[in-house]
Amino acid sequence: MPTFTVFKGSKDGLPKKSTTTKPDELTRDQVLVRVTVSGLCGTDLHYKTDDMALGHEGVGVVESVGPDCKVLKKGDRVGWGYEHDSCGHCHQCLTGNETYCPERAMYAYADRDQGSFASHAVWREAFLFKIPDALSDEAAAPLQCGGATVWNALRAYNAQPTETVGVMGVGGLGHLAIQFAAKMGCRVIVLSGSDSKKAEAERLGAHEFIATKGKKELSVSRPLDRLLVTTSAQPDWSQLLPIMAPGATIHPLGVAGGNFEIPYMPMLLAGISVQGSVVAPRHLHRQMLEFAALHGIAPVTETFPMTEEGIKEAMDRLENGNVHFRAVLKAQ
Amino acid sequence: MPTFTVFKGSKDGLPKKSTTTKPDELTRDQVLVRVTVSGLCGTDLHYKTDDMALGHEGVGVVESVGPDCKVLKKGDRVGWGYEHDSCGHCHQCLTGNETYCPERAMYAYADRDQGSFASHAVWREAFLFKIPDALSDEAAAPLQCGGATVWNALRAYNAQPTETVGVMGVGGLGHLAIQFAAKMGCRVIVLSGSDSKKAEAERLGAHEFIATKGKKELSVSRPLDRLLVTTSAQPDWSQLLPIMAPGATIHPLGVAGGNFEIPYMPMLLAGISVQGSVVAPRHLHRQMLEFAALHGIAPVTETFPMTEEGIKEAMDRLENGNVHFRAVLKAQ
Repeated sequence: MPTFTVFKGSKDGLPKKSTTTKPDELTRDQVLVRVTVSGLCGTDLHYKTDDMALGHEGVGVVESVGPDCKVLKKGDRVGWGYEHDSCGHCHQCLTGNETYCPERAMYAYADRDQGSFASHAVWREAFLFKIPDALSDEAAAPLQCGGATVWNALRAYNAQPTETVGVMGVGGLGHLAIQFAAKMGCRVIVLSGSDSKKAEAERLGAHEFIATKGKKELSVSRPLDRLLVTTSAQPDWSQLLPIMAPGATIHPLGVAGGNFEIPYMPMLLAGISVQGSVVAPRHLHRQMLEFAALHGIAPVTETFPMTEEGIKEAMDRLENGNVHFRAVLKAQ
Repeated sequence: MPTFTVFKGSKDGLPKKSTTTKPDELTRDQVLVRVTVSGLCGTDLHYKTDDMALGHEGVGVVESVGPDCKVLKKGDRVGWGYEHDSCGHCHQCLTGNETYCPERAMYAYADRDQGSFASHAVWREAFLFKIPDALSDEAAAPLQCGGATVWNALRAYNAQPTETVGVMGVGGLGHLAIQFAAKMGCRVIVLSGSDSKKAEAERLGAHEFIATKGKKELSVSRPLDRLLVTTSAQPDWSQLLPIMAPGATIHPLGVAGGNFEIPYMPMLLAGISVQGSVVAPRHLHRQMLEFAALHGIAPVTETFPMTEEGIKEAMDRLENGNVHFRAVLKAQ
């Protein structure tokens, strides 16, 4: 039986080269993609000890298409992210919110024999995204999850170009949020521990940069209408609530255990909302790629070879917070 | 100097009859109101030991109007609630969100010499509401804060008639939320500790009633698109999150100290939002009164005399959770 290469997690946390069976024939709207680049996301680290194919920021080239495919053809450049199927019939699917479909097929929860740390993958055409010509494979890969997460926070919840948007944390998600919000016309205020990323944040579009460490009170030119929290550590609300505008929205985007906690009465008295969210549904994901292409938005990446050694090195660097700002793995 | 009666908090927590100076002449858009009925709200208990006039669910009759008044005239029935002034110039004021104006004048924070436990009060015409003929003074009073709080949660955040709305707690706020949501066309599911309020909740419009105490899992006919938490105790999210729909909104409405806490990843994965809010801005407050008048919505009240003894008795009953469902104080 034909197979292709995937890199899986393993008990000792080391990426392990393995294989997945390739279907003899593609059925329905299946598409066989040859992976060229994959992004590495924080959530991949959570599964590094699982016996499953890793990676969910895939970009590649269509090698062949199933009989029901309507849009994609051999040679097309495509990407995919966290979600690769949904029921298509529920209220969430019918309203363009298929990321909340109760039967959604998500990374690590379904089809664990496939990932983007791989030579190939087979996905439904309906959950693949054409990559605009203006985006390189390396630029497109981190947009499939990291980009889609911050874009969704901005676009699914009515962010306006006239808003002041705070971005907390300058990393894989934060450095994309700065660019998207800035190009949407927002006033962008970046909050980071130290000044070390100030110049780069400003180059990416930040209008203000606040180093938060050790400060009791923060000073901003405008209160924040929206705050994207891209750090996994919980923010210090005693610092942040005083700089939030009435009716502001807080978007916690990092992955964390435990409870989300925020002072109760200050949240009520200022009419603040806390909005949970995941990646973008497909209609927003598409718009994100077009928007990035139009405005020259691209992740800042470090490239590693897609080999056991390359994946390990990238994961180690990410774990230690040393990636600048998103690692991508390149097919050898 | 002329004065009128107000009932204040006092060090020992007993309501104390006192006086406030009445202006010799009304200026600008000031209106002198003779109070007929006041509702009693949970927040009044918080200030019972403060040297300030209590009460913020006032209804009465206009006795005289200042030179800049344009709408109200002597004899009009009017009400007022938590807010009695705002700057009129900020973004919040200009967008109909004056309840979040940074200079808002709110009960207990401004004009502490006046309240609705009183014979009279002088407020700006701009912050008084005409009472529709179909609403009695007793019915209108609890709408000024209790009603405005639950109405605002439903109307300021886009609740749809097709939604399933959960109401947690059947008390001063909850029993009004049931009526508003039911008359808006929503499927209303009431969550209460025991079955003791089931018949009454159903009479008020609830389609389903769930007794939560001691239950590990709750069973509802539809997941909740929205949950109004009217209890001051924090909900048990392990019970509630499984019955929330994707993208649901949680409205914490009770007054409580400390932090609001909710499991972090379940909130993100289901795209849930937590929406802080206060009472309704004026445009929504007006619509609430019209809506209540049209649909025969009225609080279930217990009446006490507006005297030191009457106020004390009402407050004691409220403190012990024995009011059914909103206490009103009637001018003697």
